Amino acid sequence: MDAEHFSRAVHALPLIDHHVHSVLPRDLERVEFEVHLSESAVAAPAGTTHLDSQAGFAARRHCAPLLDLPAHSAADAYLARRAELGWREATARLLHASGVSTSLIDTGHAGTSLLSNPDFAALSAQEVREIVRLESVAERLIDAGVAAHDFPDALRRALGEAAATGAAGFKSVIAYRAGFDVDPERPSDAEAIAAVADERRTNADAPARVSHPDLLRFLLWSGADTGLPLQLHVGYGDADLDLARCNPALLMPWLRRLPDDASPIMLLHCYPYHREAGYLAQVFPNVYFDLGLAINYTGAASTAVIREGLELAPFGKLLYSSDAWGLPELHLLGAQLWRDGLARALWEFVERGEWSESEALRVAELTSSENARRVYQL
Amino acid sequence: MDAEHFSRAVHALPLIDHHVHSVLPRDLERVEFEVHLSESAVAAPAGTTHLDSQAGFAARRHCAPLLDLPAHSAADAYLARRAELGWREATARLLHASGVSTSLIDTGHAGTSLLSNPDFAALSAQEVREIVRLESVAERLIDAGVAAHDFPDALRRALGEAAATGAAGFKSVIAYRAGFDVDPERPSDAEAIAAVADERRTNADAPARVSHPDLLRFLLWSGADTGLPLQLHVGYGDADLDLARCNPALLMPWLRRLPDDASPIMLLHCYPYHREAGYLAQVFPNVYFDLGLAINYTGAASTAVIREGLELAPFGKLLYSSDAWGLPELHLLGAQLWRDGLARALWEFVERGEWSESEALRVAELTSSENARRVYQL
Amino acid sequence: MDAEHFSRAVHALPLIDHHVHSVLPRDLERVEFEVHLSESAVAAPAGTTHLDSQAGFAARRHCAPLLDLPAHSAADAYLARRAELGWREATARLLHASGVSTSLIDTGHAGTSLLSNPDFAALSAQEVREIVRLESVAERLIDAGVAAHDFPDALRRALGEAAATGAAGFKSVIAYRAGFDVDPERPSDAEAIAAVADERRTNADAPARVSHPDLLRFLLWSGADTGLPLQLHVGYGDADLDLARCNPALLMPWLRRLPDDASPIMLLHCYPYHREAGYLAQVFPNVYFDLGLAINYTGAASTAVIREGLELAPFGKLLYSSDAWGLPELHLLGAQLWRDGLARALWEFVERGEWSESEALRVAELTSSENARRVYQL
Repeated sequence: MDAEHFSRAVHALPLIDHHVHSVLPRDLERVEFEVHLSESAVAAPAGTTHLDSQAGFAARRHCAPLLDLPAHSAADAYLARRAELGWREATARLLHASGVSTSLIDTGHAGTSLLSNPDFAALSAQEVREIVRLESVAERLIDAGVAAHDFPDALRRALGEAAATGAAGFKSVIAYRAGFDVDPERPSDAEAIAAVADERRTNADAPARVSHPDLLRFLLWSGADTGLPLQLHVGYGDADLDLARCNPALLMPWLRRLPDDASPIMLLHCYPYHREAGYLAQVFPNVYFDLGLAINYTGAASTAVIREGLELAPFGKLLYSSDAWGLPELHLLGAQLWRDGLARALWEFVERGEWSESEALRVAELTSSENARRVYQL
Repeated sequence: MDAEHFSRAVHALPLIDHHVHSVLPRDLERVEFEVHLSESAVAAPAGTTHLDSQAGFAARRHCAPLLDLPAHSAADAYLARRAELGWREATARLLHASGVSTSLIDTGHAGTSLLSNPDFAALSAQEVREIVRLESVAERLIDAGVAAHDFPDALRRALGEAAATGAAGFKSVIAYRAGFDVDPERPSDAEAIAAVADERRTNADAPARVSHPDLLRFLLWSGADTGLPLQLHVGYGDADLDLARCNPALLMPWLRRLPDDASPIMLLHCYPYHREAGYLAQVFPNVYFDLGLAINYTGAASTAVIREGLELAPFGKLLYSSDAWGLPELHLLGAQLWRDGLARALWEFVERGEWSESEALRVAELTSSENARRVYQL
Repeated sequence: MDAEHFSRAVHALPLIDHHVHSVLPRDLERVEFEVHLSESAVAAPAGTTHLDSQAGFAARRHCAPLLDLPAHSAADAYLARRAELGWREATARLLHASGVSTSLIDTGHAGTSLLSNPDFAALSAQEVREIVRLESVAERLIDAGVAAHDFPDALRRALGEAAATGAAGFKSVIAYRAGFDVDPERPSDAEAIAAVADERRTNADAPARVSHPDLLRFLLWSGADTGLPLQLHVGYGDADLDLARCNPALLMPWLRRLPDDASPIMLLHCYPYHREAGYLAQVFPNVYFDLGLAINYTGAASTAVIREGLELAPFGKLLYSSDAWGLPELHLLGAQLWRDGLARALWEFVERGEWSESEALRVAELTSSENARRVYQL
């Protein structure tokens, strides 16, 4: 085998995207396209564009040919062709080309503006399962007027129902709303009740947006009690979070307190703390991680990030995700860059005689689909 | 094109050093040369030398031929030849060979021991502009006896005058003196006045050395109010700072509070937090960064650092600087290593078919000069 | 010379392992072997194995041929052959093949379950010196009933005796027990006495396990007073520590307070903070570091880690260690992977014309043995 054959073999493996979002079901103006191809929430400053970036270059390299354009086509030409085809056709082409067989879709972030899960499944010809965001569940309960003292039981019931009706796992965004340097102890029901009452008092007229640290911690522990995989946003995201407080190393006091039968903890993205995540995956039996949106956003430079993901963690602990949101280009790029970078990183080990070919291919298979299949029982 | 042609094309591009210092206008003993080729303030321990380092090896590789010696000449031979030529001739050769067209010189650190800006411009045949250090401005006002209650207005006037008389931007060293984990809120004039009074009281007989966190914060906000680029020392520096408190991720609460028309914020050096800096440059429209002295001091290993600088940040947000201080060898090495490493990192993307040649060359041009030209309006 | 000749030259250099432990003097079941080839303290979760990891793959690649099996043999075949040979023969083969000439053995961690130092020396044909763990010395004194008010003097006497009877250096595990974010000031004898009394009170019936921050700090300062090299666990280790509190950057306030004649401070492992460690080694004359167990556990990916270790630090400041504990496979792999990765990283510099061959070989020699020989006066 040579590098090219090996890469082809990796591309032929099944791929499960264990953390992803749906797509925007409409045509997009350039400015909107640009912003969605970045974690920035606002337009680029004068004289620059978000498309002058690894993600922008990768989109023009890998997506343009799927819309019948030459690789590296200019952004305007790409967007014109995309509009000509219409969002539905462009999306179908990109999702099919991604080769993803199963997507676990987190519906928690502005999910109503996106294509529904059944429609995503139909358009992509993928199997789709839902990841339920804990904060959204809590907010629905609060908005529905559940009394504070009923909240803990109502939450446990709601999570149980979600699990019973097909949720593949849960997700917490405590990283965004409090950071990981919160009290690691399990909060009591009484603390949760007081926190809900407090949220109600300070935010009486608007839709609930859970932010009380005790309530966020209660959700985290409740998620870990379900036994279903619990995804945590970690590291890099948009400008709302405080990056230094999203370092997964700060989770260690909490991880040590989890009971043996707690949920698998799935650390998402992790960049630039993916080495820390690999360490946690080695020393805590129930910790798993992925490189998520860091692969899309580092584009041609993602091989090094993937190689760093292959340092400390046992190979049964690393998973694939794209964390794509809104643009099917991100679904395609995640898959393309993961396979290219993984094949390149693994082949280096083979070429130097340090790994056998069959070992390398097995690690590609574990990380691309088998680990997700096992942990999520797909 | 091949790797060599591409490298030559990168070397032919204009280069702007947006953060640099002047040179020592005198001949140097070996021990002094050694210390200046390191961020250490003291001699190396017995049995070792600061020249056994990436910077030392790079100097002997790249500077020796410019002084008519073979590459990799021994340190003693190099220093003997340097003395023979005299500092002025050696400096002229090294500065010319750097190919830098414009230097933005920070005059704040022991500036009086260095060649004046006009003399640097004459010796180097470069355009020179000044970067004004906020702490130095404040210290001059305090030493001139400005009354505490007049300080806020006097500072604003002084910054306005600096801008009007040609300053290209300002710089803060709050990283050194307080760290980034200070209160992110804008201090009032009254807080600044109290802090100046406090500095005066505790340090009545010596020249002012601003260290009160409220005063440092006031300078920071005042710099960001000017609209001119505001440089911040970030990450790696000498042994005075507390590295963990110089992590740019700690700036996020402050960055979120800046108004839309605030100054461009230029994060300097950033190592080993350059990935964090790239993230900030992606999600905050007014954040820019460079790899500064990390390139010089990682020498032959700097390609990996440069590649990491090309991960998350939009390419309109990364700039070149050498942060050279004192030794023209550092001016030469910064430029040489930046161009070599940048060409190598970018060519990898081209070679694998991920980027086009023209894209790669445009990114080299943006980061080597165009971004600086645009942001500093040169 | 080419890459292969250079690698052979690096492999022919003497090697000193300045931080290592002894081996388990018995045959091992698979589950025990697995756990010792990981920093995890427990079995891998269902469906996974600790041997599906860089360390596991490296063991099958490099150790199997030394036990007469083909490279990449399956784990079961490897363990069967290992049992067939018996631990003593397998251990002797692996230790001999490591090519280590001198091991400085830290006897502090469960040392009594391991082969004694003289027996290790005999089996390995290596010179062996002891590294004495400060916390173990303190615990022996407390368990022996030394009165709290006599403790400071008794400790100083004990350290002096250890130095006089052949200890090559000391080691602190304050990283594990308190983290580096403790008070950096030197504690008084009175504080140490109060801390010992407190330890006694709260832990009257069990063997002492020093955990009071003041006492740990007193040990640290006492170790630094001896003048002998003082090793500090830094960064990555097992799940007991809080990784973020083991960042060596947090040591800066303490390092600045050390007197000029304090001990050389040897930062161990450091991953994922090895760049921070390299910085400290540049700016503090008495700071040294190694990559320790990070090399073993990143296996085929360790070249990048070694290259990062060659960024900022002067080459007189980087040392080799394996931190092997229990399994002679780890002693072999540390040596093998260090030499392979070091040769590869250095040869890149030579191949690009940035370093001369003789410089590269000298750096290999400094880091593989000369620095250890000089600092430990071996």
